[in-house]
Amino acid sequence: MKIKFCSACGGEIVQRIPEDDTHLRSVCTRCHLVHYENPKMVVGTIPAKGSRILLCRRNIEPRKGLWTLPAGYLENGESVQDGAVRETREESLAQVRIIAPYRLFNIAAVHQMYLMFRARMTGDTFGPTPESTHVRLFALDEIPWDEIAFDVIHRTLSDYVEDHDRHRYPFAIRDIILKTRQF
Amino acid sequence: MKIKFCSACGGEIVQRIPEDDTHLRSVCTRCHLVHYENPKMVVGTIPAKGSRILLCRRNIEPRKGLWTLPAGYLENGESVQDGAVRETREESLAQVRIIAPYRLFNIAAVHQMYLMFRARMTGDTFGPTPESTHVRLFALDEIPWDEIAFDVIHRTLSDYVEDHDRHRYPFAIRDIILKTRQF
Repeated sequence: MKIKFCSACGGEIVQRIPEDDTHLRSVCTRCHLVHYENPKMVVGTIPAKGSRILLCRRNIEPRKGLWTLPAGYLENGESVQDGAVRETREESLAQVRIIAPYRLFNIAAVHQMYLMFRARMTGDTFGPTPESTHVRLFALDEIPWDEIAFDVIHRTLSDYVEDHDRHRYPFAIRDIILKTRQF
Repeated sequence: MKIKFCSACGGEIVQRIPEDDTHLRSVCTRCHLVHYENPKMVVGTIPAKGSRILLCRRNIEPRKGLWTLPAGYLENGESVQDGAVRETREESLAQVRIIAPYRLFNIAAVHQMYLMFRARMTGDTFGPTPESTHVRLFALDEIPWDEIAFDVIHRTLSDYVEDHDRHRYPFAIRDIILKTRQF
């Protein structure tokens, strides 16, 4: 979303490099405010119940009809763990307890980071929501690999299956390089 | 910074909870665009040279004159590691190689996260910059604990010193609870 007007005064915006800066910024021609734009954090979980994990079938675009892990934008005022638990509840109705951070993904091309946590379901409740037509537990050998919504979720799941075989889940940072800007 | 005007059309903004949402948002009264606001990521390093670490004395407000680790806002289009290396170079002139992620701090009250990496200096170059009046290597028993600029940096350093004694630096997520909104 291109910034055309200043959110402080309504003035017109131009793109220029401010003094003592190195990046092109949106600068107000009227009040001279610099509008910085920064990457956004998406937080989510791998909700586990025994050796099965919970996936959600998307009811919204993009990638409607494909399967994903519960995840969404971190809100102002919440911790990354609280955000991941909230998104899990909103998308799947499942209550989870965070076990540990698992993967941080740079998706620099779309100005996003994904922080995915391992989590344990603390009850038996889960089900469809406005965001998910189906919510289902999958054994790790049942994961629908050809119907996963996003590269970043595919990578989270394939790393998780590999680490499950080793009984070790070390935290790591990875880059997701998108083939197109639609990921 | 309160949003008063729509950055897309220049229309006036009201605060309301959109349909299918749970949070109060800045919504345009003219084009109805919802302006989401999300936490920002600060990335930085603990630059090590042998058993000493590099600190910067701030040349800018807030906390001008106090010591800090090099850190700053992640930019669109860069990875968290690249951002941490860039901020280190900009604030201290030091070139570093990332070793591993060390701490992720939630500072929910000011809508920030801090991701601090352990890093190794790859040369002998460092020195003052527009952001730092002094840049200096400190042995761990020389750290000026009463002159550290921010709670989050104090905590990073005290955790690091403790882990240094154990020869183990496990990654962890911590909360910083601010006593005031000026931290």
